[in-house]
Amino acid sequence: MSIRSISVGAKIPSTIVYENSPGNQVNLAEEVAEGKSIIIGVPGAFSPACSSSHVPGFIKRLRGFNEKGFQKFFVVAVNDAFVTKAWGDALLGSTVAGAQIKFLADPSGAFTKDLDLLFDATKFFGNERSRRYALIVEDGTVTKTFVEPDNTSVVVSDSANVLEEA
Amino acid sequence: MSIRSISVGAKIPSTIVYENSPGNQVNLAEEVAEGKSIIIGVPGAFSPACSSSHVPGFIKRLRGFNEKGFQKFFVVAVNDAFVTKAWGDALLGSTVAGAQIKFLADPSGAFTKDLDLLFDATKFFGNERSRRYALIVEDGTVTKTFVEPDNTSVVVSDSANVLEEA
Repeated sequence: MSIRSISVGAKIPSTIVYENSPGNQVNLAEEVAEGKSIIIGVPGAFSPACSSSHVPGFIKRLRGFNEKGFQKFFVVAVNDAFVTKAWGDALLGSTVAGAQIKFLADPSGAFTKDLDLLFDATKFFGNERSRRYALIVEDGTVTKTFVEPDNTSVVVSDSANVLEEA
Repeated sequence: MSIRSISVGAKIPSTIVYENSPGNQVNLAEEVAEGKSIIIGVPGAFSPACSSSHVPGFIKRLRGFNEKGFQKFFVVAVNDAFVTKAWGDALLGSTVAGAQIKFLADPSGAFTKDLDLLFDATKFFGNERSRRYALIVEDGTVTKTFVEPDNTSVVVSDSANVLEEA
């Protein structure tokens, strides 16, 4: 765990993110204010690890999370809202998971910056991106954090690991 | 026509862009060095105007362009290479156009900056993006420019207009 990232006991910031289009604002602090939620951060929509293992793992294990009382999932990426919408549509297809999972855009990285979870991804992505992470949030407060020490691997933030610890 | 954008007679810069993945470098100056090409700039992969009218127009009119001697088309966006690949796959589907059209990523905006065609799109996209444009290039030199005065509309750079002037 990096010392610079959001820690247990912190509140989720109310920095605005966007769903589906740049005009549709979402306040994640309000979304997670009640109940048990999981926020999943990814380096890039449509990038291989994010698209083939990390996020699909949570979709696959949705029932397991539901059984532990988690029914709200938020995938956040430093991409624009058109891209996160297209990516969500591609990953969810016609699965029932769509009712529980929102794909959110943090186009300027402001939300992720407030979590202290940005890293310099200029070489691959041209800008700063989100480290790969998962946060367990209960009634608006972070209760467990899973932040990849190398920013991009799918190990501690892997859905199987998160589910076991949830 | 804005006075700040690339003009007729200019050479296409050799600033590196990327195709399909961040490791796959493309030098557009070399790609357009011979023959008649069209470079199409768009504000955002998966954004409505880019996805529903601007780029599809060129795909639809490919035969018309071919008859005028154009056989190489390059769509450039300030997005990362994973996003431009996914977008190209979504737009091209199983059309034969894929053999002639390359979707290229300019993740940091460096190529577009060298064309003087960036604009501040922070509000929608979180960063600077490419103005919407089309450039006709013959043997590496720009012979006609079609740059949207308001950055994002599909009017002067519309495929029908470009084809008529080509």
